[in-house]
Amino acid sequence: MTQRDDTVAPGVAGQVAREETRELIAAGKVAGTPVYNRTGENLGTIEDLMLDKRMGRVAYAVMSFGGFLGFGERYHPLPWSVLTYDTSLGGYVVDIDRDRLEGAPAYAADAAPDWSSRDWGRQVDDYWGARSIWDPRAP
Amino acid sequence: MTQRDDTVAPGVAGQVAREETRELIAAGKVAGTPVYNRTGENLGTIEDLMLDKRMGRVAYAVMSFGGFLGFGERYHPLPWSVLTYDTSLGGYVVDIDRDRLEGAPAYAADAAPDWSSRDWGRQVDDYWGARSIWDPRAP
Repeated sequence: MTQRDDTVAPGVAGQVAREETRELIAAGKVAGTPVYNRTGENLGTIEDLMLDKRMGRVAYAVMSFGGFLGFGERYHPLPWSVLTYDTSLGGYVVDIDRDRLEGAPAYAADAAPDWSSRDWGRQVDDYWGARSIWDPRAP
Repeated sequence: MTQRDDTVAPGVAGQVAREETRELIAAGKVAGTPVYNRTGENLGTIEDLMLDKRMGRVAYAVMSFGGFLGFGERYHPLPWSVLTYDTSLGGYVVDIDRDRLEGAPAYAADAAPDWSSRDWGRQVDDYWGARSIWDPRAP
């Protein structure tokens, strides 16, 4: 993920930590952040992150898109590496147009994918052209 | 982090995803999880995760400890690598006794540390004997 160039959020009472610095960001601050494409269209909102337990890496950011009160909402997993934070927009930017997003791997709230399937993960990574977390690598 | 040996949580309506598999876990599922030591003493609860943006890694889990209604509560950053999930306890296990925990790097809610300081991060990693995320490494 591309870094922000500023350092944000002084510690205030009740906050767990400075929520974001040049190098670190709290997971709780990522959730709820809007996602835009390069033309500034709002594509959705980050709902949660899927972490790779063994490597301690963020595997996917799950973005919600469309729907109303949870009905009809679709979830798109985005490889972390395709998200860039834009300070002026106050959200992440992904280089994709809406048509192409509609063809991206996604699921409905009542039809969660089998995250334990490497085929599903590879399908997501391939679509987005991201280096797959499923590739063999040193521990 | 040591992996669980089972696959958990079938997808149900309203859930973003299967929240946990052998390899992946949702960040939102980690928050609120209790932390124990090897004798089964409850040490605290995971509040949030600090992510290393450039590498997309979990740098620290922030554990809250003590206090009442937020007063007197202390936050301990734990390197992700020192946490092991125990299915029978339903929480993470850290190999530390309470006395030693009390000497571990921590901060109060109204005195968040300077997370942008590598000295602070190194102090945490050193105390826990974890490989520092601050060491130089290939991109």
